[in-house]
Amino acid sequence: MANEPLLMIPGPVLLHPRVLQAMSKQMISHRDKAFSAIYDECRFTVKDILNTKNDTYVISGSGSSGMEAAISNLVKGDRIITIVSGKFGERFRDIGKRYGQVTSLEFEWGTPLDLGKIEEELAKGAKVIAMVHNETSAGVKNPAEEVGKLAKKYDALFVMDTVTSAGGDLVEVDKWGVDIAVTGSQKCLGAPSGLATVSVSQKAWDSMVSNPPYYLDLKKYKKSAEKERAETPYTPAITLFYGMQEAMKIIKEEGMENRIARHVQGAKAVRAAAAAIDLELFPVTDKYTVLSNTVTAIKTPAGITDKDLRGTMKAKGVQISGGQDRLDGKIFRIPTMNAFTQEQLEKTFDVLEETLIQFNVLDASKKGAGVEALRKVYKN
Amino acid sequence: MANEPLLMIPGPVLLHPRVLQAMSKQMISHRDKAFSAIYDECRFTVKDILNTKNDTYVISGSGSSGMEAAISNLVKGDRIITIVSGKFGERFRDIGKRYGQVTSLEFEWGTPLDLGKIEEELAKGAKVIAMVHNETSAGVKNPAEEVGKLAKKYDALFVMDTVTSAGGDLVEVDKWGVDIAVTGSQKCLGAPSGLATVSVSQKAWDSMVSNPPYYLDLKKYKKSAEKERAETPYTPAITLFYGMQEAMKIIKEEGMENRIARHVQGAKAVRAAAAAIDLELFPVTDKYTVLSNTVTAIKTPAGITDKDLRGTMKAKGVQISGGQDRLDGKIFRIPTMNAFTQEQLEKTFDVLEETLIQFNVLDASKKGAGVEALRKVYKN
Repeated sequence: MANEPLLMIPGPVLLHPRVLQAMSKQMISHRDKAFSAIYDECRFTVKDILNTKNDTYVISGSGSSGMEAAISNLVKGDRIITIVSGKFGERFRDIGKRYGQVTSLEFEWGTPLDLGKIEEELAKGAKVIAMVHNETSAGVKNPAEEVGKLAKKYDALFVMDTVTSAGGDLVEVDKWGVDIAVTGSQKCLGAPSGLATVSVSQKAWDSMVSNPPYYLDLKKYKKSAEKERAETPYTPAITLFYGMQEAMKIIKEEGMENRIARHVQGAKAVRAAAAAIDLELFPVTDKYTVLSNTVTAIKTPAGITDKDLRGTMKAKGVQISGGQDRLDGKIFRIPTMNAFTQEQLEKTFDVLEETLIQFNVLDASKKGAGVEALRKVYKN
Repeated sequence: MANEPLLMIPGPVLLHPRVLQAMSKQMISHRDKAFSAIYDECRFTVKDILNTKNDTYVISGSGSSGMEAAISNLVKGDRIITIVSGKFGERFRDIGKRYGQVTSLEFEWGTPLDLGKIEEELAKGAKVIAMVHNETSAGVKNPAEEVGKLAKKYDALFVMDTVTSAGGDLVEVDKWGVDIAVTGSQKCLGAPSGLATVSVSQKAWDSMVSNPPYYLDLKKYKKSAEKERAETPYTPAITLFYGMQEAMKIIKEEGMENRIARHVQGAKAVRAAAAAIDLELFPVTDKYTVLSNTVTAIKTPAGITDKDLRGTMKAKGVQISGGQDRLDGKIFRIPTMNAFTQEQLEKTFDVLEETLIQFNVLDASKKGAGVEALRKVYKN
């Protein structure tokens, strides 16, 4: 794949060669102890990453299947509050509508949540409140701890999507009171796409509905995991578990503290580089809603279209992502997820600068300013 | 994995080295045309394998997710008839109960269906009738064509699980009138575990319920596939698609006619070998319900426990499957799926004979009789 552009999109992330190699292993029986050990290593490492003692399972399905597992096992005609400030918040809303009475608190994408409004709705009574921790579509991190406190105060179950925070940023499931936390394999966990994990609190177990969707029935996952040898209720995607196991080993080798520091540094460098070439970040933040450490959303500058910007960059060897849905054409996004390197970020900004200069959006005298600012952050 | 026992279980099957190698490829964006081409090759090849012109999609999930997709998109409080003659028939029944009013026609596992009873129930009116084509748990193939005719006569939608027939035996979705056919990747398709496919007829599209489970919403699959470049509604398990694409290429190279003939021959050889060492097949068959060509279910002979039989064989280098649930300890199963070879079957029977002789279940003078019978079938 030497001629492929460098993949700098917020998932699926580039995989470590060790992860790729692990996935070329031959099939084994998913009812054997060898698979059981792999399954356990995956789910127990995720528990550590999420700082939780809660039961944790791996579903063979995308992050969206994990989001639906969370909602569909807790909500059956019940009231659910969804917090929306981006595309994945909308996904919680849309899933919620299939199972219960949704009150959706809609904030402009990439802007701060109004905690007062959230409390107001919780005070009316709700079984579940669902929020996306790191809103990939808009480049913001929502106030998990504060919303967790409010959920506890009003006795609502707190469901949180940590798909693009887990493995790259701090997630404190137990401390923040997250009853079901959902991850996706293909982001900061550094694993192949196609697996989701869910961690489930005792309070969530005590509140499960009867007859959720069969494939996503968490009680079945619990029952299978509690056998003498842990297994999955349905045939798992064995190859992906091979990859995830290796990704978990890599995370343990690095250590979550180092890993988070590395992600924080990377995002900081991207922001500094963007500022140095006069680009404006998309999110509006406050004390609680802050910039994401795993993906930076940047406004597409006047004078160039999204198609020209990203198309030219891709032709020059770097593939980045644009905005989704309502942000299509308005922003572009640079991830700092998993095993990204300073060198990759430098290449990205080098090509970005070149492209902006080519389209007369950036003055040629500014060439190198972004990369220099980026390096400065890494030097400090 | 040189010291691993030979995996002779009815899925996940051993994968071709080309399939394994394909899965060590680096991630790509699932919204790029490169992925679109892979997705199309997978689903279009499955259409050919199933002999259908119906829309076909690949779900990132196990065969069970495909079974649930079929039921949950068609049934919402409606009457559904499920035909049960094994574990996977029960799965349709259990899934059906989550969505509608189930009438379950229960036949002893591995015995013929009573077409009269099926017609009787269809005559009362039902929106859907669901059946497993090849019942892996019991080693029988159910009469798809006959049940399809009855479904048509009474205007019921016909849902069929072809998880262990597709790719190994003849499946005629259009001719038999199957409205939704479900496959699983890890059986005769020769692909890694973790993908399911569904083919959907126009009649099924016209009868879809509103708000099925979000992750399994077939209308979302249709909408995404009909974009300028076909895509999946949620992030797909890219690695598994790499593997499935290669598996599809291998099937096209062999040709389905040759492939089916090879499976038929393999199953015939297994049956002959079993008879030659005085083993009795488990299924009871008739004109319509016949022996499976992809898995042979054999009664565990008196004088040896399942644990001793399969444990000893595994220690001697061949891993086979036992019975599931009510057949636990009563049968064992030898698959003829995907790229199995005469050599592998010979090794399996060699070890089986050795084990039966060791436990005084088979007379030592019979050593080699199974393998010889097996070879005879291959010679003819």
